[in-house]
Amino acid sequence: MAAAFSCPVFFPSTFSYNGNRYHGRIKIKINATSSTKVKTLNEIAGAGKGSSSLATSTEFGHLSQEQIRQRIPTKKQLVDPYRQGLIIERGVGYRQTVVVRSYEVGPYKTATLESLLNLFQETALNHVWMSGLLSNGFGATHGMVRNNLIWVVSRMQVQVDHYPIWGEVLEIDTWVGASGKNGMRRDWLIRSQATGITYARATSTWVMMNEKTRRLSKMPEEVRDEISPWFIDKRAINEDVPEKIIKLDNNARYVNSDLKPKRSDLDMNHHVNNVKYVRWMLETIPDKFLESHQLSGIVLEYRRECGSSDRVQSLCQPDEDETLTNGVEQSLLKNMVLTPGIMEGNGYLGPLDVKSYGYTHLLQIKGDSKNEEIVRGRTRWRKKLSTLPYSS
Amino acid sequence: MAAAFSCPVFFPSTFSYNGNRYHGRIKIKINATSSTKVKTLNEIAGAGKGSSSLATSTEFGHLSQEQIRQRIPTKKQLVDPYRQGLIIERGVGYRQTVVVRSYEVGPYKTATLESLLNLFQETALNHVWMSGLLSNGFGATHGMVRNNLIWVVSRMQVQVDHYPIWGEVLEIDTWVGASGKNGMRRDWLIRSQATGITYARATSTWVMMNEKTRRLSKMPEEVRDEISPWFIDKRAINEDVPEKIIKLDNNARYVNSDLKPKRSDLDMNHHVNNVKYVRWMLETIPDKFLESHQLSGIVLEYRRECGSSDRVQSLCQPDEDETLTNGVEQSLLKNMVLTPGIMEGNGYLGPLDVKSYGYTHLLQIKGDSKNEEIVRGRTRWRKKLSTLPYSS
Repeated sequence: MAAAFSCPVFFPSTFSYNGNRYHGRIKIKINATSSTKVKTLNEIAGAGKGSSSLATSTEFGHLSQEQIRQRIPTKKQLVDPYRQGLIIERGVGYRQTVVVRSYEVGPYKTATLESLLNLFQETALNHVWMSGLLSNGFGATHGMVRNNLIWVVSRMQVQVDHYPIWGEVLEIDTWVGASGKNGMRRDWLIRSQATGITYARATSTWVMMNEKTRRLSKMPEEVRDEISPWFIDKRAINEDVPEKIIKLDNNARYVNSDLKPKRSDLDMNHHVNNVKYVRWMLETIPDKFLESHQLSGIVLEYRRECGSSDRVQSLCQPDEDETLTNGVEQSLLKNMVLTPGIMEGNGYLGPLDVKSYGYTHLLQIKGDSKNEEIVRGRTRWRKKLSTLPYSS
Repeated sequence: MAAAFSCPVFFPSTFSYNGNRYHGRIKIKINATSSTKVKTLNEIAGAGKGSSSLATSTEFGHLSQEQIRQRIPTKKQLVDPYRQGLIIERGVGYRQTVVVRSYEVGPYKTATLESLLNLFQETALNHVWMSGLLSNGFGATHGMVRNNLIWVVSRMQVQVDHYPIWGEVLEIDTWVGASGKNGMRRDWLIRSQATGITYARATSTWVMMNEKTRRLSKMPEEVRDEISPWFIDKRAINEDVPEKIIKLDNNARYVNSDLKPKRSDLDMNHHVNNVKYVRWMLETIPDKFLESHQLSGIVLEYRRECGSSDRVQSLCQPDEDETLTNGVEQSLLKNMVLTPGIMEGNGYLGPLDVKSYGYTHLLQIKGDSKNEEIVRGRTRWRKKLSTLPYSS
């Protein structure tokens, strides 16, 4: 629970970055009545258990073991050498360099959508980390923790033009903006570090939920004061009118019932992480389709959180009519990298290759009397190009 | 398939590290008959498809798009700023600094065992990456690719004294040694960067498999010549006599049948990644036990690879007799951080807390006539200490 970690963190000194990695080690001496040698974590924990006076007699003042280990900044940082992150956009945006890891790619060495979503989450949290606003919750600011508030995502849209490959170096930019009166928009861009080509773009909307009542909340003034200086008016995806996603019913073509959240699906907010929802959605699409197609875009509308004891049903329905007329397709096309090859129809990427396929999705909790919606989704797909060695 | 990526990689220049991050961008100009502006990846792929003469007329000579994007070194590197890795141990060991990411931890903010195993895999591959020996396979050297060989793990043992927490900076050391005539041992140590305390240690044994016949292979001389200069005689875990793991049968207490590998479970070697096996094993243990216990050690003996069409059954059996007499327990105790608190029995970590609980595991493929073993396992558990905020 974020509320359990509400103490502000005081550091004896902030991190300094002198153009190189920070190599200092903290020598932990907890128990003033004991010897001065470096203690093990067991001893630290033991000391904390034994007596509260021991826990406060550290050379770091009121630092807990957790605070020593995490070292969450209390002041805005411009560079974090460990996270390979830096503040950009005139002081309010964040850029992180990451290498695509071996376990983030599938059998064809391309990063999975899940990996991209995980990297979005990670860079978003590191952005808050750098801001000095982070309490010890899942991206919650000090003001949010004082009000028992956590972030919940209400909408997420991702467009993938190219999938990064194993070992590739990426730059991920992220920034935030206002969304209505009580929400926050967060956008991302993923670029190839080697070429500067944009691989993927994403936008999301976040609102606050009371951690105890699990009800959505207005944004308190003190939280607005914390985060609004970071807002900028810039969009990764230009979408004039968000498409309405229809609600599927039991007539949906593909249904996967009795999905059970696993312990490993729960995140620090003690509910199923939204990235796991995407896995359930995509697993409901027939293998045969997945083998020959590549996801180019996804829109998710989150309605309700899902706990560890819920039983989940995943429904999906392919579009019958594949004409490119509705909102999402239009906006996808608008944001596609329209290369001269496509524009001029010179043969290597003909009109057929641009044809996109759509699926509508629904995840719901199976109740005794009625079902409750967790998330509605739309996915767009393109045929894999066999000539692209990394289409997966 | 690793065999599809067998071309050696030639770079116009190797990476230089001048004490800071490498910020150069490669301007890709592929098609000499077109304009000189920076091209998109689609154009590169298109050019490669259109004509082989186009594909070889790059300013990098014979570099493919993949080679430009991955930049696998062909010569030994001492430092990789992107991976935050460096060569240690007189030129043959590897150390990487990593930050525990938000999606690598569970609800109690501690890294999951799966995350640790993923980081072991990642640092092992980056070690080979730095060596200049890496072909484009999953850790395969150039000599292995010439002989159609891939690495398969035959044994893995992990001991976790402390679980890293979200945001914590870790140093992971890894190195290799000989294992018999045809195998390789790979060890790891995970340390806290802030305190230098060792959190986890691991050792593993690897053998080579012919990628086409899927049969184990001797180590060819040319491969031995590549890798043996990197061997050192140092062990992360001292284990005199490896414990024999008994084979469970259908009388096992807990059985989870009809596990189906998912597309996302397959790795670059086109079989189920060994990390996924651990997930299946642990999910078979009752929730009630998992909630109150923490894994302290695991031993895995891999017998057979598992493909995407196999149906898997997971069995496990708790030890009846909890006396600490057998090999694994002895070796676990030997390697435990025996703090003065434990040694002197001064109250905060009494003898009861040291009591460990064991499970025996088996994953097998359900066949029509007989079942085939995938992996046998032993796990050791300790009771969670409620006073440790990060026990999970």
